[in-house]
Amino acid sequence: MKYPTREENYAEWYQRVVEDLAEHSPVRGCMVIKPWGYALWENIQAILDRVFKETGHQNAYFPLFIPLSFLEKEAAHVEGFAKECAVVTHHRLEIGPDGKLIPAAPLEEPLIVRPTSETIVGEMFAKWINSYRDLPLLINQWANVVRWEMRTRLFLRTTEFLWQEGHTAHETEEEAKEETLRMLGVYERFAHDCLAMPVIAGIKTESEKFPGAVTTYCIEGMMQDRKALQCGTSHFLGQNFAKASNIQFNDRNGELKLAWTTSWGATTRLIGGLVMSHGDDDGLVLPPRIASAHLVIIPVIHKEETRQEVISYCHSLAGELRHIPYHGRPLTVIVDERDMRGGDKSWSWIRKGVPCRIEIGPRDLATDQLGLMLRDYPHKEKKLLTRNELVAQFTEELDAMQKRIYDRAVAFQNAHIRRIDEREEFYAFFTPKNREQPEIHGGFALCHWSGEAEEEEIVKRDLNVTIRCIPVDASQEEGRCVISGKKSLRRVIFAKAY
Amino acid sequence: MKYPTREENYAEWYQRVVEDLAEHSPVRGCMVIKPWGYALWENIQAILDRVFKETGHQNAYFPLFIPLSFLEKEAAHVEGFAKECAVVTHHRLEIGPDGKLIPAAPLEEPLIVRPTSETIVGEMFAKWINSYRDLPLLINQWANVVRWEMRTRLFLRTTEFLWQEGHTAHETEEEAKEETLRMLGVYERFAHDCLAMPVIAGIKTESEKFPGAVTTYCIEGMMQDRKALQCGTSHFLGQNFAKASNIQFNDRNGELKLAWTTSWGATTRLIGGLVMSHGDDDGLVLPPRIASAHLVIIPVIHKEETRQEVISYCHSLAGELRHIPYHGRPLTVIVDERDMRGGDKSWSWIRKGVPCRIEIGPRDLATDQLGLMLRDYPHKEKKLLTRNELVAQFTEELDAMQKRIYDRAVAFQNAHIRRIDEREEFYAFFTPKNREQPEIHGGFALCHWSGEAEEEEIVKRDLNVTIRCIPVDASQEEGRCVISGKKSLRRVIFAKAY
Repeated sequence: MKYPTREENYAEWYQRVVEDLAEHSPVRGCMVIKPWGYALWENIQAILDRVFKETGHQNAYFPLFIPLSFLEKEAAHVEGFAKECAVVTHHRLEIGPDGKLIPAAPLEEPLIVRPTSETIVGEMFAKWINSYRDLPLLINQWANVVRWEMRTRLFLRTTEFLWQEGHTAHETEEEAKEETLRMLGVYERFAHDCLAMPVIAGIKTESEKFPGAVTTYCIEGMMQDRKALQCGTSHFLGQNFAKASNIQFNDRNGELKLAWTTSWGATTRLIGGLVMSHGDDDGLVLPPRIASAHLVIIPVIHKEETRQEVISYCHSLAGELRHIPYHGRPLTVIVDERDMRGGDKSWSWIRKGVPCRIEIGPRDLATDQLGLMLRDYPHKEKKLLTRNELVAQFTEELDAMQKRIYDRAVAFQNAHIRRIDEREEFYAFFTPKNREQPEIHGGFALCHWSGEAEEEEIVKRDLNVTIRCIPVDASQEEGRCVISGKKSLRRVIFAKAY
Repeated sequence: MKYPTREENYAEWYQRVVEDLAEHSPVRGCMVIKPWGYALWENIQAILDRVFKETGHQNAYFPLFIPLSFLEKEAAHVEGFAKECAVVTHHRLEIGPDGKLIPAAPLEEPLIVRPTSETIVGEMFAKWINSYRDLPLLINQWANVVRWEMRTRLFLRTTEFLWQEGHTAHETEEEAKEETLRMLGVYERFAHDCLAMPVIAGIKTESEKFPGAVTTYCIEGMMQDRKALQCGTSHFLGQNFAKASNIQFNDRNGELKLAWTTSWGATTRLIGGLVMSHGDDDGLVLPPRIASAHLVIIPVIHKEETRQEVISYCHSLAGELRHIPYHGRPLTVIVDERDMRGGDKSWSWIRKGVPCRIEIGPRDLATDQLGLMLRDYPHKEKKLLTRNELVAQFTEELDAMQKRIYDRAVAFQNAHIRRIDEREEFYAFFTPKNREQPEIHGGFALCHWSGEAEEEEIVKRDLNVTIRCIPVDASQEEGRCVISGKKSLRRVIFAKAY
């Protein structure tokens, strides 16, 4: 049951570590999210949803299906999504001549299973918006989407995934741009504060932006194989979708104007990012702010006559802790009474990444000394606390662990970002040192780029490296493009990516 | 903008009243749930989800798509759903000869968009369950499902709807039956306590049960046109799906056994039920426990110089109230500063069914007398309270309103349930008195039924009436079937239904 280490085989390590969270389903490309993984998604939802509402957004729900003709309304959009659309063509099954079911009742117009909802939301916005008084319109949707994938990887790339998609319409260009950046900031803070991931916020290049957007902003995280993972995007759509869907309003002077729109989204991919940012060779490491549970209490019973006392103590402690709020939700505490070997039990929780464990036996009750074990400490190391101390200090312990996990990720990221000015060094940076680990390479290269798509194509072709983003906080700095040597005014992030 | 009254045209009344909650989308049969409606669904989700977790269930997520061959595994199941399946046959779009998009890349095996998930969940359960130690397995999923409908009605019958579906597996028949009844009880209490709907819990007849179930339990509510609405179902599936999906386990004696399974669900249909149970001729009436918002504060500004003072007072009052918890969630208070006529503003909130309104002008500040207006009282009637009294009593006012709304629904239901023993009276009961209102008839008939499907067919054909359920609390009572005159041992509920 031991996994390969991250060094030995990163891809296989990921696949094994993620088993407690999700698995492949019999439906090609679609995953089943298991309870321990879904709890992470519920926590992500709860936190983001609260922030969306605090920033004035309301939730709504739009149809799963999109008529084919809607997709055609925005040229870049259809170009971007046509190749990965699941198409519904019939609305009934009948028994065929060989006794097998076959599709019957063809639709007049085929329907696409939504890969994203700009076109259908736009259609409704056009109905709902008449006057400047109806603006801004700030809507969010929690939903499933489908983008057909030939090669899938749990959470990172699946045909169906879960996400939220914000869709907003504004009176002015400036307001829409503000909204785009506001939501980018929401994602960035969420990644830092809750996921403990030191992401880099930036702008996508033309070749990497969302199909139909004017500008795509993103946050990019560095995984432990030093590849980049896009963890959220916020798009300034200009008037492209307003034109396509005819979203018009009477402005303050009574003139008919096109609205300015945005969209922004984060997905179950974040769970893959969590795993790859913090997991270690023993399994998952879940930051307390987002963890599926905070503490597992394991009753240790050597003799039958002490069973009742130990079990009740464990439940009473769990009950007491469950009343303590931790960043807006009550502490989640599990008492694990499963009938299995103590060692296996502990390992099952280490592997699942639960932040804290306590094993409680009759002696611990007698001495009032509880041994708190922390997931990011050596596994047998115990912090001895009385019950009162534990209850009083527990959330501080969690906050301290959250900070340690974040700091470790920051240190890792800093160690693997390099400013590179020479093409040769650039190529060496992205070339794996070890043939048996072709995935592991230098990391993020912070380099000058002249702004031409041709330069992007070269590194993509030669190294499978792309520009992840032009960091929003990049200061102006004169230099020469690392690929072409042409003049450049700022550095961008080059990396291999998921 | 005035609707027809319920008496004048019930169907049209429903369509108009529901406009604030949802609307038809350009996608045939699919609705858009608007923020005011979606907030109801969020409240339903929050409350049910808490109870599901308290009763030991965990959330997970299963694929949207189901391979055609899975559906075929359970004969009754495929028979029940084949006619309403949306079928995905292609996974790509290409530009056709006429420049239009056409489906390309046909799938080897077509996929069904899930109408329900027993078959795909069963497949995973078979993998996850090995031993009696893995049981019970108690899973719930919040998801969208698709059942193709030719005639749709917002919330009541749509091609796509949102729901939760519980799926559980157990060691013994008895445990599975207990679970089925436990979840029926959860739905029943939720309908009574939160939706203020006095539903009747019962068992479906063979002809009305879930395709593939051994026994289907349901809760049935009476709408104001006296028709029945099924508001939730809980199915004892016996070993039917365990057989179909091969869900086996080693029992306590090491023998391989088939598991016993259940499934249970409630949908966005409940929102339609809320509307039709409590709405009046002025619009929606939302019970406080589930309402999208509890209170709207409307600043009344006659002179510009008092504006600032009034607005800040309103926000300060709202802020104070928002800290008060009400049945597990904070009070939701809206300050409506929209630039429109006061009368129109008030009416817009009456129509939306918000439980309480307060209009606040400079004089109210001076006298510290706030006029609380309650949705179920005459619209101009004000309860005068000081600010402190309002804050102290507000949740009591909500609870009292919740009770009044429930009591009114109970009285309505009691007034329109009749014990009927004669066939002639039965036919008269279900025949509309008024030709212009063909929908309105007697209500629920509590009658003897001998248990034969033929009798059901007769009343279905003659009156479009069905047996809604055999009430679980029906006492044994000898009698004669109201249709055939054959011997019967208990009464069942006959009604027209949505």
